[in-house]
Amino acid sequence: MRGTLVGCGFFAENHLNAWTAMRETPLEGVELVAVCDRDLGKAEAAARRFGIPHFYGDAETMLAEQRPDFVDIATTLPSHRALVELAARQGVPAICQKPFAASLEDAEAMVRACADAGVQLMVHENFRWQHPLLEVKRALDEGWVGKPFFGRVQFRHGFDIIANQPYLAEDERYIIMDVGLHLLDVARFLFGEAGRLYCRTARVDPRVRGEDTATMLVDFASGVTGVVDLSTATKTEPEPFPECLIRIEGTEGTIELDQGYRLVLSRTGHREVRPVDAELLPWASRPWHVVQDSVLAIQRHWVDCLREGREPDTSGADNLRTLELTFGAYASAETGQAVVFG
Amino acid sequence: MRGTLVGCGFFAENHLNAWTAMRETPLEGVELVAVCDRDLGKAEAAARRFGIPHFYGDAETMLAEQRPDFVDIATTLPSHRALVELAARQGVPAICQKPFAASLEDAEAMVRACADAGVQLMVHENFRWQHPLLEVKRALDEGWVGKPFFGRVQFRHGFDIIANQPYLAEDERYIIMDVGLHLLDVARFLFGEAGRLYCRTARVDPRVRGEDTATMLVDFASGVTGVVDLSTATKTEPEPFPECLIRIEGTEGTIELDQGYRLVLSRTGHREVRPVDAELLPWASRPWHVVQDSVLAIQRHWVDCLREGREPDTSGADNLRTLELTFGAYASAETGQAVVFG
Repeated sequence: MRGTLVGCGFFAENHLNAWTAMRETPLEGVELVAVCDRDLGKAEAAARRFGIPHFYGDAETMLAEQRPDFVDIATTLPSHRALVELAARQGVPAICQKPFAASLEDAEAMVRACADAGVQLMVHENFRWQHPLLEVKRALDEGWVGKPFFGRVQFRHGFDIIANQPYLAEDERYIIMDVGLHLLDVARFLFGEAGRLYCRTARVDPRVRGEDTATMLVDFASGVTGVVDLSTATKTEPEPFPECLIRIEGTEGTIELDQGYRLVLSRTGHREVRPVDAELLPWASRPWHVVQDSVLAIQRHWVDCLREGREPDTSGADNLRTLELTFGAYASAETGQAVVFG
Repeated sequence: MRGTLVGCGFFAENHLNAWTAMRETPLEGVELVAVCDRDLGKAEAAARRFGIPHFYGDAETMLAEQRPDFVDIATTLPSHRALVELAARQGVPAICQKPFAASLEDAEAMVRACADAGVQLMVHENFRWQHPLLEVKRALDEGWVGKPFFGRVQFRHGFDIIANQPYLAEDERYIIMDVGLHLLDVARFLFGEAGRLYCRTARVDPRVRGEDTATMLVDFASGVTGVVDLSTATKTEPEPFPECLIRIEGTEGTIELDQGYRLVLSRTGHREVRPVDAELLPWASRPWHVVQDSVLAIQRHWVDCLREGREPDTSGADNLRTLELTFGAYASAETGQAVVFG
């Protein structure tokens, strides 16, 4: 299977490493044949470092010349719609980084374009592919808590995100668009679809323009009441970045994903702790390794889905529900009232 | 100082023990001279066990005959308004157990009655007098977190409350009225007055009639976004009852009150843990000892305030704000929208 990639920036490094690891595992049967960046020097550097035969400064030319089996769009938000529509026009299945789109209208148009063209579309919504979160999901599916009634998805840290991605400081919408949508997606993954969402936001760090802390209360159709809360202004030790912490309570017991990647399964009179840290891949580095492992996992899922002709778990269509909550969170924060879905 | 007490039920045991401890400390200069219960046998038994000279089946007679310096009303909700108004009519300062009143109108009438009669009125809102919570407040006031922006007050457990207080299972309003108001009061104690509150509730345990889990998101005028969440349906180990857990984040650092009465003060690069368990008083027993210690603390505060002629921290007037949030929580849970105060 011959892939291509657009956008050789900060996070694309993880995609490139994961594609390279897959290429070097012959059973995977997939390789990148070309990379593209509007800064041609970046594309060339990536091609050289990762042993990729071709590089381009223009995505349209790359797709036209290479006729690849898929394109991995690893650019930032503003280019997503044009690139996904380009892929659809050229009949090329596409992975699109998050945030998928700047509005629900854009996202719907992108999903429609790919559906009309009959090509697969997956959003690179990698959080739910993190090993610790997969283990939480497994314990939940195995019935540890019985019927769940409360869930918390927490992501509070003080890691200097802005140092790596300075453009985020300029966005009017910051943390919900950057990380909140991951957490809402994880909440959907664990608790199902949401019916109502209430959100409060604040800006703590004067260096950023948008909100850097958000707290949401979500009703899920499953009966779970969810708290989704996040902050990049949290000053604590040890630094929790990039750990997503979870608490799920049900009629029979409790599942916690605690800091240090400890999965705690408890019931009255019983408690067990399982280490659920992700593998440290050869190209990975702490504390990013859990995220890096999830990139490999979602890329494998994509290749499997393409081969088997089935819809990815985090397809464009699926991601519409996550985006609906994301934009709903901003609407709620603005009006001070809950937003109702469905 | 000569006190009296009305209502010799489950929780009054703690009041009686604390008054006895104060009597046995001559410096405190306070003793109960009479107790009352509409079940005269209960009053007699309490008088005998705690060495109290008189017992009554009727509060009006007790107050008229004893002319005490105060009355401690330790009955359940339905009798509060009549008893507080009785105390006001007889010019007797009163402590009233929580929930103070069944409606804001009742509460306002009770506060007015005491104000008009010129007698002190304190609500037995003892949570904020728990030693671990006083230590949290101290760390906050000393500036550990800088300017606080996030606060969580959590009380989730699986202790069988209903076994000790079976009448609670029959109430249409259960956990917010029984414990939620304590947590909202603690939140006010730590974060100041609230401007907006959103609440979701659920009933998990089929044995109870009212809600046994509630999750609230509160805006405080101080800039803190608060999460207040509670449950009596939580199945975990070790059992957290009756621990109130706290997390406060600010511009400089984080304060956590973790299970096991561990106060954790952290900032980037620094972490310290202080044990803040309450003293185990001679008449106290685990796990209630923290609550029992707080009963002694609030009773001492009451006596100090009476002597010095100043308003108790948890006066009737102060408690109106806590009740406003409590009833606001029910209103929000019912409408699915936020309630705005002030």
